[in-house]
Amino acid sequence: MPIPANTSLKSPLVIIMVGLPARGKTYTAQRLQRFLLWRGYQSRVFNVGNTRRAQVGAQVPHNFFDRENAVGLTARRAAAESTLDALLEWCALGGQVAIYDATNTTRSRRNWVKIACEERGLRVLWFEITCADATVIDTNIRASKLSNPDYKGIDPEAAVADFRARIAHYERAYEPLAPEEGSHIRLHDLGQRIELFDIHGYLQGKLVSLAMNLHTVPRPIYLSRHGQSEDNRQHKLGGDSNITNAGKAYAQKLAQWFQDRDKQSIQIWTSTLRRTIQTAVPLSDHAIALKSLDEIHAGICEGMTYEQVREQMPREFQARKEDKLGYRYPQGESYEDVIERLEPIIFELERQREPVLVIAHQAILRALYGYFTNRTRSETPHIEIPLHTLIRITPRAYGYDEERVIMGPEVPQT
Amino acid sequence: MPIPANTSLKSPLVIIMVGLPARGKTYTAQRLQRFLLWRGYQSRVFNVGNTRRAQVGAQVPHNFFDRENAVGLTARRAAAESTLDALLEWCALGGQVAIYDATNTTRSRRNWVKIACEERGLRVLWFEITCADATVIDTNIRASKLSNPDYKGIDPEAAVADFRARIAHYERAYEPLAPEEGSHIRLHDLGQRIELFDIHGYLQGKLVSLAMNLHTVPRPIYLSRHGQSEDNRQHKLGGDSNITNAGKAYAQKLAQWFQDRDKQSIQIWTSTLRRTIQTAVPLSDHAIALKSLDEIHAGICEGMTYEQVREQMPREFQARKEDKLGYRYPQGESYEDVIERLEPIIFELERQREPVLVIAHQAILRALYGYFTNRTRSETPHIEIPLHTLIRITPRAYGYDEERVIMGPEVPQT
Repeated sequence: MPIPANTSLKSPLVIIMVGLPARGKTYTAQRLQRFLLWRGYQSRVFNVGNTRRAQVGAQVPHNFFDRENAVGLTARRAAAESTLDALLEWCALGGQVAIYDATNTTRSRRNWVKIACEERGLRVLWFEITCADATVIDTNIRASKLSNPDYKGIDPEAAVADFRARIAHYERAYEPLAPEEGSHIRLHDLGQRIELFDIHGYLQGKLVSLAMNLHTVPRPIYLSRHGQSEDNRQHKLGGDSNITNAGKAYAQKLAQWFQDRDKQSIQIWTSTLRRTIQTAVPLSDHAIALKSLDEIHAGICEGMTYEQVREQMPREFQARKEDKLGYRYPQGESYEDVIERLEPIIFELERQREPVLVIAHQAILRALYGYFTNRTRSETPHIEIPLHTLIRITPRAYGYDEERVIMGPEVPQT
Repeated sequence: MPIPANTSLKSPLVIIMVGLPARGKTYTAQRLQRFLLWRGYQSRVFNVGNTRRAQVGAQVPHNFFDRENAVGLTARRAAAESTLDALLEWCALGGQVAIYDATNTTRSRRNWVKIACEERGLRVLWFEITCADATVIDTNIRASKLSNPDYKGIDPEAAVADFRARIAHYERAYEPLAPEEGSHIRLHDLGQRIELFDIHGYLQGKLVSLAMNLHTVPRPIYLSRHGQSEDNRQHKLGGDSNITNAGKAYAQKLAQWFQDRDKQSIQIWTSTLRRTIQTAVPLSDHAIALKSLDEIHAGICEGMTYEQVREQMPREFQARKEDKLGYRYPQGESYEDVIERLEPIIFELERQREPVLVIAHQAILRALYGYFTNRTRSETPHIEIPLHTLIRITPRAYGYDEERVIMGPEVPQT
C-alpha cells in the first residue's frame, strides 16, 4: 500500500548504520536502498569510507584507525562530516530515506549525527549489526574488504591481518546502542537474533520484514515468461488464452533443461492464468499458482490489440507512452500497482535458500528482474524479457550473476 | 501470498505463550488466532486457565498457585496436561496452528510441552510477553482479570490484591526464555521492544508484522460503502461508474455527520474507483486512494448484471453460489484473493492510533469487517454491508463495540 508522503513520510528518514567493520553494514545498507528505490522512495546510501578514500587516499595503515592517532582521527572526522553534510543537503533537496553508512561505534559520534539530523527535522532510525561468529567475520573480510581499494595490490594474508588490527581499534571504543538513543533495529549473527526497539511505522515495518528475510546463501532465481499464447500470436492484451504449439515446445525444452542441469529440488511458482500453468506442466506437478503473479491487468483494454488501443483510445495510448510506470489502465493496473502487489513475492524470494523458478508474465517479470538487478523504477517497464528465454539470476553479496538461455522455438516477440 | 500447505506448513505449528499473569498473553493469543483464521489457517487457542476452572472450579485462593502447595500443583499440572492433550489431538486431526495459552514460566514446564509437541512432529514457536511497567499490569488486572470467573462477586480491591499475590507465586519461579530453547518472539513493554530469535518462515514473518502493529489504544474504525452508483442502480457488477444524486446526498450526510461529531483529525482511505473518491469529496480533500481497496474484480463478468451472469453463464453462477469464498471469477478474483490483498491494509488499520474512515466496496468491507468482528471465513461473503450506512467499530482488548448509522437516502440494496 503506497501510503503517500503526508502520512508515511512526514519528514525524511535517516537510517544510521552502527557496527564494527566487516559486520555487513554496507551490504545491508545497499539492500535497504535497493528495496526502497524499488518501492518508489527517493533513497541513497552515504558511505563515509568512500569519502575518506577520496579525501586521504585508499591505502592507509591500520594505525590510521587507532583512536590515539590524532592525524587519523582528524581525517576520519573530516570524512564523517563531509559525508553527513552531503546527506543533509540531499535530504533538504527532497531525498526521502538517507542511509548513513559508517561504523558509528561510539555514543558521542552517534549523538553528533543524531543531533545534526534532528536539528533539521529529520527522523532517525538506528540499524546496528553485530556478529560474534569469527568465521563469518573472516568470510566477510575476505569477500568484500580485500577487493576494496584500501588493499589493492597487497598480499591477501597481510591485508587480512591489517584489517583485523583495524577492527581491534574500533572494538576498544565500541559502545552498543542503548534504548535511550531511540528507535532501532539490531541484527545479531546474520539475523539469527533481531531486536526491534520502538519500531512502529509503516516503512519501518517493511524494513524489518526485509531484514528478517535477507541472507547471503547463494542460490539461483529463475525467471521465465509462459510459452507463446494464442493471445501473444494475435497481439492481444491480457486475457487467459492457452499456449500455442510453439509455447508447448518451449515448455518441453524448459523441462528438459532443468532435467539435464538442475537436479536439486526446485520450487515452481506460476500465476493463476492458463498460459503459465500450462508452461509448468512438463516440469512438475507441484507448481504453486499465485494470484499475485498474474499479468498486469489492462482493465477495459483487456482483449484489445495495441493497435486497437492506439486507434480507439488515442488519449490512453498517449498517456501510457508518456508515463508507462505510472499509467493505470482504466479499471486496471499500473506498473506501480504491480510493484506494490509483488512486495510479498520479493520477501519470499529473498527468504528462499533453494532455487525458485517463477513462470509469469512480461510486466511481472520486469518488476521482479528490476528488483534483483538494481534497475531504476523508470527503467522497469522497458526491460526486455523475451518469450522462450530462461533468465537465471544468482544474487551475490554485492551484485549478481546473470545468464540468459535462449531456448526457442523462435516466435515473434510481444 | 497463500503459500500452500506443502511449502509453508509442512507440519502443524504450535505457538506456546510464555509470561507471568496479566501480561497480555490471552489478548495476544486471541489476536494471533483471529489473524490466522482470517488468512485461512485452521487455528485454535488452548487455554489452561479455562481447563483448570472447569476441573477444579473458578474461585480458588491465591495460595493455590503457590509452588509449595502440593494440591494446587497437582491440579494445575492436570489442567496443563489435559489442555495439551486436547491440543495434540486437534493437531493430529488436521489443525494447522495451535496456540497453547498458559504461563509456562519455568524451563522444566516448557521442556515438557516442547518434547510432547516435537515427539509428534509438530513445530514449536515460543511467544513470550514481558512487562516492567506496573501501571500497565495494574490496568490489565482491572480490565480483564476482575471480570473473569475466578473473581465473580468478589470485592474489586480484594480481587486485585489476591491476583497480585498470585502473580508473586509465579514470579518466584520465572525463568525467561533462553536462546537454546528455540525459535521465539518476545514482546517487552507492549511491543516497545521486540526480540526475534531464529524467526525466518513465511508464516512467522506475518506473525511478527502483526505483533509489531498490535496495540490496545481504543480508536474507532469507520467503514462505509460509496454512495449509490449508476451501476448499483442498474445492478451491474464491477465497472467504474459515477455516483447518482442519491449517492451524492449520502456523501453530504456523511460529511455532515463527521462535522457534527468527530472533530478530531480522521484519516480517509478510498479505493481508486470513482464512486468511492466521489463519496469522499464533501468530507475532505486529503483522502488517500488505495488500489488494494478496489472492489473484487469480476473478470469477464465485469459490466454484466447478476441476472445476465445467471442466464449466460449458468455454470459460473452455480459455482459461485456453491462456494462464494473460494470462487474466482474467470480472469478475476475470489474472496480469498481479496482477503490476501487486504492483509497490508489490516496491518495498517491495526497500527493506526487515530480514527480511520475506509470508503470502499461491498466485498472489501465484508473482508475488513469480518476480520475486526471475528467472523469465520465462510461467513465473510455473506456479511451485510448496506449502502448508505456508516459502520463504526471500536476494537477493545477483548471484543469490540459496533454502531451502525443508517444515514440514507433509502435506495435499493445491491
